[in-house]
Amino acid sequence: MTQSLNPDDRHLGLITDLYELTMAAGYHVYGMADEHATFELWVRRLPSCRNYLVAAGLEQAIHYLQHLSFAPEQIVYLREHPAFRYVPNDWFERLEHFRFECDVWAIPEGTVVFAGEPLLRVSGPLMQAQIVETYLITALTVQTLIASKAARIVTAAQGRPVFDFGSRRAHGPQAGLLAARAAYLAGCTGTSNTEAGRLLGLPTLGTQAHSWIMSFTDEQEAFRKFGQLFPDHSTLLLDTYDTIQGACKAVASGAAMQAVRLDSGDLERLSKEVRAILDGAGRQAVKIVASGDLNEYKIADLLAAGAPIDVFGVGTELVTSRDEPTLNVVYKLVEQETPQGTVGRFKLSSGKATYPYPKQVYRRQDASGTFSGDRIVKATSQEQGEPLLAPVLRGGELIEALPSLEASRRRCAEQLRRLPPELLALGPCPSYPVQVSEELEAELHRPK
Amino acid sequence: MTQSLNPDDRHLGLITDLYELTMAAGYHVYGMADEHATFELWVRRLPSCRNYLVAAGLEQAIHYLQHLSFAPEQIVYLREHPAFRYVPNDWFERLEHFRFECDVWAIPEGTVVFAGEPLLRVSGPLMQAQIVETYLITALTVQTLIASKAARIVTAAQGRPVFDFGSRRAHGPQAGLLAARAAYLAGCTGTSNTEAGRLLGLPTLGTQAHSWIMSFTDEQEAFRKFGQLFPDHSTLLLDTYDTIQGACKAVASGAAMQAVRLDSGDLERLSKEVRAILDGAGRQAVKIVASGDLNEYKIADLLAAGAPIDVFGVGTELVTSRDEPTLNVVYKLVEQETPQGTVGRFKLSSGKATYPYPKQVYRRQDASGTFSGDRIVKATSQEQGEPLLAPVLRGGELIEALPSLEASRRRCAEQLRRLPPELLALGPCPSYPVQVSEELEAELHRPK
Repeated sequence: MTQSLNPDDRHLGLITDLYELTMAAGYHVYGMADEHATFELWVRRLPSCRNYLVAAGLEQAIHYLQHLSFAPEQIVYLREHPAFRYVPNDWFERLEHFRFECDVWAIPEGTVVFAGEPLLRVSGPLMQAQIVETYLITALTVQTLIASKAARIVTAAQGRPVFDFGSRRAHGPQAGLLAARAAYLAGCTGTSNTEAGRLLGLPTLGTQAHSWIMSFTDEQEAFRKFGQLFPDHSTLLLDTYDTIQGACKAVASGAAMQAVRLDSGDLERLSKEVRAILDGAGRQAVKIVASGDLNEYKIADLLAAGAPIDVFGVGTELVTSRDEPTLNVVYKLVEQETPQGTVGRFKLSSGKATYPYPKQVYRRQDASGTFSGDRIVKATSQEQGEPLLAPVLRGGELIEALPSLEASRRRCAEQLRRLPPELLALGPCPSYPVQVSEELEAELHRPK
Repeated sequence: MTQSLNPDDRHLGLITDLYELTMAAGYHVYGMADEHATFELWVRRLPSCRNYLVAAGLEQAIHYLQHLSFAPEQIVYLREHPAFRYVPNDWFERLEHFRFECDVWAIPEGTVVFAGEPLLRVSGPLMQAQIVETYLITALTVQTLIASKAARIVTAAQGRPVFDFGSRRAHGPQAGLLAARAAYLAGCTGTSNTEAGRLLGLPTLGTQAHSWIMSFTDEQEAFRKFGQLFPDHSTLLLDTYDTIQGACKAVASGAAMQAVRLDSGDLERLSKEVRAILDGAGRQAVKIVASGDLNEYKIADLLAAGAPIDVFGVGTELVTSRDEPTLNVVYKLVEQETPQGTVGRFKLSSGKATYPYPKQVYRRQDASGTFSGDRIVKATSQEQGEPLLAPVLRGGELIEALPSLEASRRRCAEQLRRLPPELLALGPCPSYPVQVSEELEAELHRPK
């Protein structure tokens, strides 16, 4: 029997690190499982190649929280796992009826965020809030990672459409769907992933693979027959044998075409030569799509050099966030109601210290609406500016429908417009000001 | 309604690039859909930070091929997609009954492979062989990527167990499961991912999160209570406040413990000091687990410096293959039976040329059994050495059960033992010799 390892929505309970479950059992045994606790999730440091991040993935995180349960065979697995040998029966019974009932606050998808700012806050029974750590981090990290990369690529393209062509390079079939979503949210125009198009209503773009051209003995015939069947959706791939000859043949074939695609070689030179060939044949309306290991730097260089490229297809670099394929996202206990009262929780680990207590982020703006700085404060404080975290789940139930993907995409575009413009540079720039309140700072220096 | 974007095994048909489907429709319309074609999948270039790759992911690729179908709502989506406006009805009807019926040859999982070597060959009706491109590339790329990184990390650990701790950093929940599998295949001892443990029978390791320690007012109490409930599976996390004080408290608490974990700071110094504290208290049997942004280079440095670390937990760097999070995997048409006869197919794109015809890879060995070089030849040629590709599916049906994950893991270990030892170095080394036969080379220079 082969296994797909496609996660099953009915079996999400064990998609977590084992220690979440041993700790959960411990909280239960020691009577702490229902102590009210608050955890927060944030990015510890910005990668050096990112000036800002775009929050994404909340919808998938919330879906998980609403569908989280333990299937009978998963509970059997835990019962038989040697680590759980001394865990009493009533804990396993508790898992049978597990439902996530915490309150969740979060920064909406599409919001620009910075290091240290809680993207998500979970408050509720300690055991429940603990178990969800691993999946929540994964769900928010991957899309935030891709959306943040996509925003840079879209910025570099200066208004030209960017399509996600990266499904084949994503870290598995699901990662391709997640990347398509995150890329669209951050401003890409669409994706080549058909299922992402169907599930999420994204515009999809298809061109041709080399195999289409290769499967005909004659390149012109390959072009013509494609244009005949897809007269309004015909993008001809020119580089199977030789891009310039390919362009001449595309024109000579008389094929219906809306665009041509260049996928290898010196894209600056080729795009100029192909443009000239097309224009010379009176095909000014035919667009040029470029692809092939593109990223924000290459796109910026191409456009700076005047390459007449109309559409960019970006794969590998986008869906793997190749220059930094990870974010240092953590999920930490910040407050707990114990029999001795409510206490702020924090750790002091070398280089990894955390601030206690539930927090809110306030974003200020200048007279023109440009963001001028954020302050991270205790959630109970009142501050000037826009509070970024908003309630999403109450007792595990959605308070209101999440924003649509289109709405999140509009939010992202607006957020990027309001960023201090220097942050949109591809290279490093002075950090956006994010302050931690004096009150929170003082907590770290209190005697424990 | 929120969406998980967890792929559904009953809806795999559209998890592909749109152009695979437009081309498929084109092959159908032009009477080519059932022409016998052969595609091959290979890694175009080795990343500069890899001396070899470990083939992995075949089981998930085969699962896909055996379960590939188009759900009614997916076919409706295509019917309504503007690109398919002129595609005749009988193509959509054909999708309703789609079954993958090709022959598949592949290099078994756990085999060491190099650039240019076909990992997989698909032969059958052109339309079927085309549609599967995107998913096959994804399925084989991600696990080959992670297994190849894992093999380096395991090598660096010189026999000490390495556990995958990376689920939270994987590119989505599925990527975490895939990474756990690939890491185990390549020699990791197990994973922290509970569901991967259940589905794949992997050893799972759990320790403690900082939240466990933080949720008790007293660190010693946190240690003691954990050891009490998990007397045989107790790994105490020392660095929540201060690693050295943590070690002293762990000892003083009298907690049951098999191991302690260091997760931050100078792991060389701390491991030595903690070892001394443990030994001084007569706890020589307690092992030291180290984690925290480890990779093969850091592990090698720690061991070279004599750090008394017994077990490594590796997350981010392993599951994202951080130094190179992608492989340049392609899937190309190499042969086609046309009305004019059987023809080799290839492309000449700048820097991306391919060789025509189905191929086989023969691996030679020296007298000691060490691999001495590979030759890529036409599949019809006979050569000395071990042929690496073997038949897996005939007409879409499994010829025999795939090797178990344990068997693939043993194969990988044996393959690594038989590699020229210089390839196991972490730095670059002279390439392993891979030759393309003269007969194949000559094909590129034949007049087309």
